[in-house]
Amino acid sequence: MESIKFIDKKLFILDQTLLPNKEKWVEIKNIEQSYNAIKTLMVRGAPAIGIFAGYSMALFSDNNNIYNLKKYLDSSRPTAVNLSWATNRMIRAFENGKSLIDEAIAIHNEDIEMCRKISEYGLTLLNDGDGILTHCNAGELATSRYGTGLGPLLLGKEKGYNFHVFSDETRPLLQGARLTSYEFEKAGIDVTLICDNMAGFVMKKGLINAVLVGCDRVAANGDTANKIGTSSVAVLASYYNIPFYVLGPYSTVDFNCKTGNDIEIEEREGDEIKQMFFEKPTALKETKCFNPAFDVTDHSLITAIITDKGIAYPPFEKNLKEILK
Amino acid sequence: MESIKFIDKKLFILDQTLLPNKEKWVEIKNIEQSYNAIKTLMVRGAPAIGIFAGYSMALFSDNNNIYNLKKYLDSSRPTAVNLSWATNRMIRAFENGKSLIDEAIAIHNEDIEMCRKISEYGLTLLNDGDGILTHCNAGELATSRYGTGLGPLLLGKEKGYNFHVFSDETRPLLQGARLTSYEFEKAGIDVTLICDNMAGFVMKKGLINAVLVGCDRVAANGDTANKIGTSSVAVLASYYNIPFYVLGPYSTVDFNCKTGNDIEIEEREGDEIKQMFFEKPTALKETKCFNPAFDVTDHSLITAIITDKGIAYPPFEKNLKEILK
Repeated sequence: MESIKFIDKKLFILDQTLLPNKEKWVEIKNIEQSYNAIKTLMVRGAPAIGIFAGYSMALFSDNNNIYNLKKYLDSSRPTAVNLSWATNRMIRAFENGKSLIDEAIAIHNEDIEMCRKISEYGLTLLNDGDGILTHCNAGELATSRYGTGLGPLLLGKEKGYNFHVFSDETRPLLQGARLTSYEFEKAGIDVTLICDNMAGFVMKKGLINAVLVGCDRVAANGDTANKIGTSSVAVLASYYNIPFYVLGPYSTVDFNCKTGNDIEIEEREGDEIKQMFFEKPTALKETKCFNPAFDVTDHSLITAIITDKGIAYPPFEKNLKEILK
Repeated sequence: MESIKFIDKKLFILDQTLLPNKEKWVEIKNIEQSYNAIKTLMVRGAPAIGIFAGYSMALFSDNNNIYNLKKYLDSSRPTAVNLSWATNRMIRAFENGKSLIDEAIAIHNEDIEMCRKISEYGLTLLNDGDGILTHCNAGELATSRYGTGLGPLLLGKEKGYNFHVFSDETRPLLQGARLTSYEFEKAGIDVTLICDNMAGFVMKKGLINAVLVGCDRVAANGDTANKIGTSSVAVLASYYNIPFYVLGPYSTVDFNCKTGNDIEIEEREGDEIKQMFFEKPTALKETKCFNPAFDVTDHSLITAIITDKGIAYPPFEKNLKEILK
């Protein structure tokens, strides 16, 4: 279920806007197509965007246009940190006279390795037969292989574990329905789709042994920004005494950010709530919507933060640094 | 925003399946149309169904067919208790030689009176300017006037209160979006639509002073069955120290039901989650869905139960009986 392929110096992506109804691979032939693919969410997920940007620069830049081309790509989705991180790295490779294609392949391979490590650490916390709740999509489509939040489940499947996954559909953009349930179905993992407001019900019924989520930014004290609804799932998990695990690359920990209060939350258009995906609008044109894209889960609700450098338990302030040693 | 009108011995309903995109009043001219209107959810909400069934029997029955007609109507939605309660009452009126039309009007007026009392009791717990979170729809469309869960807000508006309401869209059937935000918009009440997974976020931001919900059945100990997601909202409200109020007719308290464990939860079709309302399916055909229509909120999470007979505080076991005295 990888979403980016580089074969015979040709770049292909799985168009994620058409999932789960159509699996269409698109060849990307010029930088304008790269820009549009990111902009229109054909490729999404911060690590996947970084990998894709690396290949795009390797294929479509030359000595004359590489700086302009980096600027152009960066502007396609200015908030994704991995995008400018990857394009900066390609610029450094260029300035050091390295092969751009080798550098893009290195970015891709390093991401696979990082995801594998996160998945291996995460898997040590789970048992065969566990019921798992997931929120949003932090799987292979969003990364390279395995994913972060979903990684232990995909790696576990390879190793013969049988998990019973409940996937929150994750309104308003439905990543849990459109992408997570799709990935698990394709991987042969037992998955059941539920609405976000059913998470408490399956917990109460005793069907959930652990909650796994990804993360967009982790503050020094462990407060974690992730897809809207994550913090509510964490409150429910705490109430029902279920471990709540956050998974992501160590680079997601932002030590300059003391607590979750320092994390700005992106607000998006109300039409995503009342119009997008629907046959007809679900509310009147004049009805206001409030559409925060992320929320911050308080560190006190998190059982452990699982990174490629190891597993940090509370107190996170101390132990997020400790695991590097 | 009433959904049933009886004018010059003619019966009209607002077709709720078309809301919020179309306000279409339909005249009901025979018992087959009555049956279909209930079956297809053109009229929904237990009290509204009862009122509608009363008028239907008054208009379309005669000495010969009234018993068959009751049976036929009852079969349109066998789980709604108010439906058979209303048709039984019409049969008793017939057997006692009363005017059927007067009886139907009485059922309607008594519901208005009951909703007004619930709303008045509820309003004593709120303050002008309060931020309120609602889940699902227990307003005028579901009853006669004011509603139960939404009643204090609609009555408060008449009395000059200004509330700031956040309405959970309430997946999968979107009653919060399609009906609640619509009712409030029409009533001139400040309403903001959110996805169910955003309820915790607005609570954390300090925007919510109280949560108001309706109820489908209340056990003797106060455990309350209501629309799926209600119990999760209650856990969140408890975590954020926000009062959580359940509102409904006193007849909703089922003293034969000791705890919530005795309440059976209806499971509905998975297509309601991954197909209904959407332009395209949100998940693969083979993906399983789990779709419980209700959940049970533990009595320990409920601040007060507000009925037409008064307000019960914990311990509910004792105080739900006490308020009758």
